[in-house]
Amino acid sequence: MAGSGEITYPLGAQPAGAPEPPPYSARLLIGCPDRPGIVAAVSGFLFEQGANIVSSHQYSSDAVGGRFFLRTEFVMDGMPERAAELEQSFAAQVGGRFQMDFEIRRYGERQRMAILVSRYDHCLVDLLWRWRRGELEAEIVAVVSNHDDLRAEVEPAGVTYHHVPVEQGRKPEAEQAMLDLLRGEVDVVVLARYMQILSGDFLERLGVPVINIHHSFLPAFAGADPYRRARERGVKLIGATAHYVTAELDGGPIIEQDVERVQHSQSATELERVGRDIERVVLARAVALHLDDRVIVDGARTIVFQG
Amino acid sequence: MAGSGEITYPLGAQPAGAPEPPPYSARLLIGCPDRPGIVAAVSGFLFEQGANIVSSHQYSSDAVGGRFFLRTEFVMDGMPERAAELEQSFAAQVGGRFQMDFEIRRYGERQRMAILVSRYDHCLVDLLWRWRRGELEAEIVAVVSNHDDLRAEVEPAGVTYHHVPVEQGRKPEAEQAMLDLLRGEVDVVVLARYMQILSGDFLERLGVPVINIHHSFLPAFAGADPYRRARERGVKLIGATAHYVTAELDGGPIIEQDVERVQHSQSATELERVGRDIERVVLARAVALHLDDRVIVDGARTIVFQG
Amino acid sequence: MAGSGEITYPLGAQPAGAPEPPPYSARLLIGCPDRPGIVAAVSGFLFEQGANIVSSHQYSSDAVGGRFFLRTEFVMDGMPERAAELEQSFAAQVGGRFQMDFEIRRYGERQRMAILVSRYDHCLVDLLWRWRRGELEAEIVAVVSNHDDLRAEVEPAGVTYHHVPVEQGRKPEAEQAMLDLLRGEVDVVVLARYMQILSGDFLERLGVPVINIHHSFLPAFAGADPYRRARERGVKLIGATAHYVTAELDGGPIIEQDVERVQHSQSATELERVGRDIERVVLARAVALHLDDRVIVDGARTIVFQG
Amino acid sequence: MAGSGEITYPLGAQPAGAPEPPPYSARLLIGCPDRPGIVAAVSGFLFEQGANIVSSHQYSSDAVGGRFFLRTEFVMDGMPERAAELEQSFAAQVGGRFQMDFEIRRYGERQRMAILVSRYDHCLVDLLWRWRRGELEAEIVAVVSNHDDLRAEVEPAGVTYHHVPVEQGRKPEAEQAMLDLLRGEVDVVVLARYMQILSGDFLERLGVPVINIHHSFLPAFAGADPYRRARERGVKLIGATAHYVTAELDGGPIIEQDVERVQHSQSATELERVGRDIERVVLARAVALHLDDRVIVDGARTIVFQG
Repeated sequence: MAGSGEITYPLGAQPAGAPEPPPYSARLLIGCPDRPGIVAAVSGFLFEQGANIVSSHQYSSDAVGGRFFLRTEFVMDGMPERAAELEQSFAAQVGGRFQMDFEIRRYGERQRMAILVSRYDHCLVDLLWRWRRGELEAEIVAVVSNHDDLRAEVEPAGVTYHHVPVEQGRKPEAEQAMLDLLRGEVDVVVLARYMQILSGDFLERLGVPVINIHHSFLPAFAGADPYRRARERGVKLIGATAHYVTAELDGGPIIEQDVERVQHSQSATELERVGRDIERVVLARAVALHLDDRVIVDGARTIVFQG
Repeated sequence: MAGSGEITYPLGAQPAGAPEPPPYSARLLIGCPDRPGIVAAVSGFLFEQGANIVSSHQYSSDAVGGRFFLRTEFVMDGMPERAAELEQSFAAQVGGRFQMDFEIRRYGERQRMAILVSRYDHCLVDLLWRWRRGELEAEIVAVVSNHDDLRAEVEPAGVTYHHVPVEQGRKPEAEQAMLDLLRGEVDVVVLARYMQILSGDFLERLGVPVINIHHSFLPAFAGADPYRRARERGVKLIGATAHYVTAELDGGPIIEQDVERVQHSQSATELERVGRDIERVVLARAVALHLDDRVIVDGARTIVFQG
Repeated sequence: MAGSGEITYPLGAQPAGAPEPPPYSARLLIGCPDRPGIVAAVSGFLFEQGANIVSSHQYSSDAVGGRFFLRTEFVMDGMPERAAELEQSFAAQVGGRFQMDFEIRRYGERQRMAILVSRYDHCLVDLLWRWRRGELEAEIVAVVSNHDDLRAEVEPAGVTYHHVPVEQGRKPEAEQAMLDLLRGEVDVVVLARYMQILSGDFLERLGVPVINIHHSFLPAFAGADPYRRARERGVKLIGATAHYVTAELDGGPIIEQDVERVQHSQSATELERVGRDIERVVLARAVALHLDDRVIVDGARTIVFQG
Repeated sequence: MAGSGEITYPLGAQPAGAPEPPPYSARLLIGCPDRPGIVAAVSGFLFEQGANIVSSHQYSSDAVGGRFFLRTEFVMDGMPERAAELEQSFAAQVGGRFQMDFEIRRYGERQRMAILVSRYDHCLVDLLWRWRRGELEAEIVAVVSNHDDLRAEVEPAGVTYHHVPVEQGRKPEAEQAMLDLLRGEVDVVVLARYMQILSGDFLERLGVPVINIHHSFLPAFAGADPYRRARERGVKLIGATAHYVTAELDGGPIIEQDVERVQHSQSATELERVGRDIERVVLARAVALHLDDRVIVDGARTIVFQG
C-alpha cells in the first residue's frame, strides 16, 4: 500500500489478504424418503470416518410420508484423495439402506456453467464481474447468444462467445446447435435475459438445471409491455423472480425474489431501470445459492438452506 | 414524570408535550385539464389573499392533453372563518377559468369514516389503536360487520358497532341495510378484511371512496387458499395491497403495497401470520394517506403525493 | 359462516378451523464445547428412544475450539409423560460425556413472561394483542410500570398490572419491589419501552433474560432527542433494535433489527410515528423468537435459528 | 430482431427504440429566504415567458424564517437558444427581489464528473457501466487513483486514468497534483471507495461537491475492521450511506442509505460481499440524484426531491 494515510477503517475488507483456510473439506447432499434414523445413520457414519460436521441443514416436507433433505459440510483429513472411497462406503453403509439420492462435492470442485443471453447486458455483465472476483464458484464454459451484440463484454474475460441465431421458423435447428455446444459440457445453464422460449424437448435433452430471471409485480402483469401496464395500475413495488425453468413458461420452482419501491412520477423507462437493478441482484443471488448447493427442488417449490 | 432516573434519550418522543402550532391553515386540492398558467394563477391568487404556501405537490399525467393535479397547504390569517369566502373567490377567479375540480379542507376538519369488517380482527384493532392515538385524521362513525364477533373490540373505544348479517340469497337486503346506515353519513369506507363482495350497485349508491386490503404475492395466486398455494410454489415474498374498490374485484387503483421475506420452513399458518402483519400496516398507511388527501385517482392508477 | 357470498379466496386463513396436530413433541436445546461426534451421539440417542427428528438447526462458532449449539424438534410417543425420564437418560448417556448445557422443553410448555412498561403503549398493546391471538407461546404473569397510565390496556386482558413508581433517589427501593414481584416467578422479562435504566445488580438478582427495544439509525445518534437530531442530519432510514439487556446500556446481544425509509419532508413527530411502527414489530419478532427457543447467546452476539 | 419466437413480454424494455421527446426544456433551481409570494412570482414569470411547468418540487425548512427551495422543470419554445436571455430576465425580474441563489440548467447539459478510487473496483465498475448505458447524465472527465490497479477497467471505456500515488508524508503534494488535474475541470467529484482522507484545504480549493460512500450499521461501528466487529455483535442489517464530504470525516449531509439483512452464519468475508452490493447501488443512486439536481443541501442535511 503506497500511502501512509490510507484510511484504515475498512482494513477487514482489503482486496488481498492472508488466505483463509478452506471452510470445509466436502459437502454431502441427500434426498430420501423420510423415516426415523436418517440423521443418526449419516452422522454416525461421518463420525466413524473421522469427519467433523461444520454446518448442517435439514428439512422434511412432512414428518409422515414426506421427503427428507440434508446438506452437510464437514472437515476430514485425507480429502480430496479419499473422496471416491468415501462415496463408495457411504453408498454401501447408509445410502442404499435409506434409498438415498446423494452427492459428495469436494471443496473447490466447480460446476460448469453456461450463460444464455440476448441483447440486454445487465445480468450478463454483473455475473461476469462477480465471477472474475471469485463470488461465483463456477467455471464459465461459454456464453451463447441469439445476437452478436455482447461479444465485446465476454471475450475480454476469457470466455468463449457463441452466436447461435434463431431464424424465423428454425428454432429447432437453433436448439440443436445449442445442444451440440452444451450437452455434457455443463452442469447448469443460466438465462441472463435470454428472450427465446426454450422447448420442453430442449430442456429434457439438455438434462441440467436451467435458471431464469424475470420481472415480477404485485399483482402479476402477464403478457406484453408489463412496465407500462404496471405503471398504469399505479404499482408501488417492482420485483424480480429467479426460478428453475420448466416446460411451463415462468412457472418453475422459485429460487429467489426481491422488490424495490417506485413512485407515480417515474416513467416506464425509469421503472425498467429499477427493474434491471433488481433483476441482476436477484439472478446473481439465485446462481450463487445454486452453485453453493443450497437450493433443493421439492416438487413445484424449492427448499433454500440459507441460515 | 415520577422518577428522576427516567431515561432521557427519547425525550423528543414523549406522549404529552407542548402543543405544536397547526402546520397549515387549509389544504387546496385541484384536478383539471393541464395547460399553461395554472400554477401562476393559483399561487397568484393565494398570494393576493395573504396566504403563504408551506407545502405543494403537483403532477401532470402528460404535458400535452394530460390532467394536472395539485395539493397545496398554506397558512393564512383569519381561517377557518374565511374558508367559505375563500372558496367562492377561488371559484370565481381561478377555478372556473381552468375547469377545475377543487376542494378546500380546513385544518382540523375530519373526514367521516366507516369500517366494514368480518371476523379477522387485525386490521380493525390496528386502525382503532391508531385512531385513538390521533394518527388518523378521521371521525369513525361506525363499524359494520356481517358477524357479531368483534363487538367487544369496538364499543370500548366509543364507536357504534352494527351487525348486518348477510344471509344466503339475501345480499341485496344486507347491502340496502348498510346503505341505510352509511349513505350521506360517511366520506370514506374502509374494508378491514370484510369478506363479502360488494356489488357495483352498492358502490355506486354509496358514492364515496372505498378502500380495501388484500394479500399479494409475486406472482399472483388468484382464487382459494392462496397462502397454501404460494407455499407450494416456494414463494419468497409475501405482500399486501391496499386499493380503491371498483366493481372489478381487486382491480381498483393501488394506493400502497409492501412485502415481507419468508422461508420454506414456515408453515401456511405462519405465512398467514406474516401476511396479517403486512396487511394491517399497508392498510393503515393507505388510510392515513387518503385522509391526508395525498392520494389522487388518475384513471386506473393513483398519484400519491408523499415527498 | 352466515353468508353464502362470503369471499372464498382466503379460506386457508379462517380464524377457526380444524386443530392442527402438534408439530413436535419436545425440543432439545444444547450448547457445549465443539468436538467430533456430538451430532452422532445426540441423533443416535434420539433414534434409540424412538424419537423422529422433524427439524434441526446447529451452529459451531469455530470448528476448532469453538462452541457448538443445537436446536432439535422431535416427535416421540409417550410424551409428555416420558419427559423426565428422557431428560435423565440423556444426561447420563450423552450430556455428561460432552459437558453439555441442555434443556428439553415439551410442546405446549409455556415460558412465564413479565412486561415492564412506562407510558408509551405501542409495544405493550401489540404484545398483548398477539398474545391473545396465540402468536406468543408464553404465560404473561404481570405487567409492571413506573406509571399508572396503562392499567386500562392491561386488566381487560386478564393480566395483573403492578404500579411500582420510581421516586427520585429511591431507585433501589423500586428495583427491590420489582424483584419481590418477579424473582422466581418469570422466565423472561420484556421491556416494552420501559424508560428506567435497570442496574446491573437488579439484572443479576433477577437472573432471567431481559429483552429491550430501542430506536436505531444509520449512523447512531446516542443521547437526547435522537429523532430531531436524525432529522437534522437528513437520515433516510429509521430503525429499531431488539437486544438482550446487559449492564452496559444498549450494548447487549442483538436479537432482531429492521428499518423503514423516511423523507426530508417528515417532521420529527412523523419520524417518531414511523419509529413506533418499527419498534413494535421488531420487539414482537424478538420475543417470539426467544419464546420459540430460536435465539442463542454466544458471547456478545446471538445465533438466531430461523431457517 | 432475428428470431420470430423472441419472447415479447418485455417489449417495452427494448434496448433500442423510438427516441422519446425531451421530457423538459430546462430546469430552474432556486434557494432563498422563505417569504410569501415566491411561487407566485416564479410561476408568473415562467407563464409570461411562455413556459409550461411539467414538474415542480418545493420545500421550506420553516414557514417563518426558514429557507425556501424549488426545483422546476418546464418546456418552452426557443430553448436552448433563449437560455442566457431567460437567465438575465429572471435575475432582473424575480431573483434579485427575493435574494435568490438560482441556476437554469438546459436539457442535455451534462455535469463534468471525476471519480476517485483506490483498489476496490465494485463502485467504479458499476458507475462506468451505468454511464455507458446512459443512466448517468454526466461527462466523466477523469478517473484518479492512488493505485494503478484499475487502469484496465477504465481506459476501454474511453476515460482517462490518472495515477496519483500518495506517498508517506507527502499527501499535500498528492492533493496538489489532483487539484492541478481537477480544479476548474469538474462540477462534481465522486469517491468510489477512495481510501485517503481528503484535507479540508483540498475540499475548499476544489470548490465543487464531493460525494462519498461508506458502510453503515445499526448501531455504528467506527474505527477499524467494522465488518468483523459488526459480526461479533450479531448485527442483523448491513448498510451503506452516501453523503457529501465535509472536513468532518463521514459527517457530511446524507444523500442516500440502504440496508440488507444478514445472518449469524455469514462470515465477515460474506458480510463484506453484501456490503459491496449495497455500496454500489447506494452510491449510484446518490450520484444520479445529484446529477439530476434533486439533492439540495440545507445545513447539515439534504432535501431530496424524489416524488
